[in-house]
Amino acid sequence: MSVLIVGSTALDSIKTPKAENPRLLGGSASHAAVAASFFGPVNLVGVVGDDFPRRYIQLYQRHRIDLEGLQRLPGKTFHWSGEYELNMNNRRTLKTELGVFETFTPTLPKAYQTTPFVLLANIAPALQHHVLNQMRRPRFVVADTMDLWLKVALPDLLKLLKRLDAFVLNDSEAQELTGDDNVFTALKKIHRLGPKYVVIKQGSHGSILSGPRGLFICPAYPLQKVVDPTGAGDSFVGGMMGYLAAAKGPIDDNIRRAMTYGSVVASFCCEGFGLGRINRLNRQTIESRFKELASCTRF
Amino acid sequence: MSVLIVGSTALDSIKTPKAENPRLLGGSASHAAVAASFFGPVNLVGVVGDDFPRRYIQLYQRHRIDLEGLQRLPGKTFHWSGEYELNMNNRRTLKTELGVFETFTPTLPKAYQTTPFVLLANIAPALQHHVLNQMRRPRFVVADTMDLWLKVALPDLLKLLKRLDAFVLNDSEAQELTGDDNVFTALKKIHRLGPKYVVIKQGSHGSILSGPRGLFICPAYPLQKVVDPTGAGDSFVGGMMGYLAAAKGPIDDNIRRAMTYGSVVASFCCEGFGLGRINRLNRQTIESRFKELASCTRF
Repeated sequence: MSVLIVGSTALDSIKTPKAENPRLLGGSASHAAVAASFFGPVNLVGVVGDDFPRRYIQLYQRHRIDLEGLQRLPGKTFHWSGEYELNMNNRRTLKTELGVFETFTPTLPKAYQTTPFVLLANIAPALQHHVLNQMRRPRFVVADTMDLWLKVALPDLLKLLKRLDAFVLNDSEAQELTGDDNVFTALKKIHRLGPKYVVIKQGSHGSILSGPRGLFICPAYPLQKVVDPTGAGDSFVGGMMGYLAAAKGPIDDNIRRAMTYGSVVASFCCEGFGLGRINRLNRQTIESRFKELASCTRF
Repeated sequence: MSVLIVGSTALDSIKTPKAENPRLLGGSASHAAVAASFFGPVNLVGVVGDDFPRRYIQLYQRHRIDLEGLQRLPGKTFHWSGEYELNMNNRRTLKTELGVFETFTPTLPKAYQTTPFVLLANIAPALQHHVLNQMRRPRFVVADTMDLWLKVALPDLLKLLKRLDAFVLNDSEAQELTGDDNVFTALKKIHRLGPKYVVIKQGSHGSILSGPRGLFICPAYPLQKVVDPTGAGDSFVGGMMGYLAAAKGPIDDNIRRAMTYGSVVASFCCEGFGLGRINRLNRQTIESRFKELASCTRF
């Protein structure tokens, strides 16, 4: 089945202690869509300006991502610049130029309105609501978020939580949302806000799912070198949704494997700047790393 | 088979934001020995002063820990006072009074010299060497350490690493020892210093083993409330060694399960002050939490 992915499509300029890479393909929806594309068909909704490089459109196309929902408007593409510290754990934003993203309204092509799997990648909760308002009985709806929306759009986000099947956020966001620094009690508190499935991402420590079949502790792939972690969280949830949409059977039978595939795709994301490594990926390479990760947890 | 455990036997005064508990039974060997005792026979080597409460001797005895190697000397028992911050991740030492521990020489009773499994719990590397010098062909030798020895006794520690089967340390110590903040490259560097098995503890994020059968990512038990984490690392390695010594078959067939049992016992340690929770534990309760933890990692 298909996955609808809505979020930001951007240009990222990323500085690390070792390199500087201007105007890479970035944004939550770009990372998630490419990650999901290894498992099945993806419909992408986003907006780019008239400066958006043709080679990035071709990159989406090479991954057979449907672009009917990608709006191309006069003006500049959303541009984010950020800098990482030596240990790659701390990053700071140098510049955010919203461009055409400032007035983005995610209007869905008619054909997208019945997509069974919906990933509301990180954008303003009001836009995530707007997408859901256009959908007809989706089978499984997941949203990701970021700390900014907890600060400036909390009421919208709380309303959104009641419309989701699954909510994905990172550990510091979970702490901010619940006021609880214990990840397991935070999970319980987030369930009470609505979602049946809650996933807390913990970066290099993996992620934790709480759902109807209890907790799942999902490992991160053991990476010996992180080149650029930008988009790893988006790749994780994109890979997870891609696998879920492609898998047969109930969500509960598949979601743990789906998260593990998400972990694997996210690990490739970290091994290159922007989508540099992921772009050269294929399903076979994903499978081999999946098996390797599985063997690291068996006892 | 039996485990020999050598380390500190101490009184701990522990302050947290919620409570103050003076003169609890503590020390690396106490925690490790009680943790190991749930799986099989334990020989304990340590030293206490004449102020050591009789009830703590009885506690060891209730766990059938052999005390022939516990020296009782005139003077005061090693006394450590520490304080935890609200999130339980940061602790600072308020006072360290070495007492009879200052001149401790771990002399092994003859009967202990052939114990097949040896756990050199955290004490000065010179004393860990002294123990090994008295052993006759042990089957499996593990040492734990602490940041202090990396600073003040690094040459001794480096020599010790060449005499071990397994070395256990926490992530910040691994970073200090190797100068590498990536846990997986740090593991490789530590192998080059000698040990065939290296275990890096990551607190609430679990632990990682590197050994002949590759990496094992060992989860921590999902605890909703941490009362006092003092001794959790010692309980982990004690439980691991207790299980290993009791299990039949090659080390490689058992070490992953052993670590998982260590994780489980460590989780009980965190649920009470000192040995308060662990003291009331039995094998059945351990088994049930082991199964629960196993179900959290299956996919």
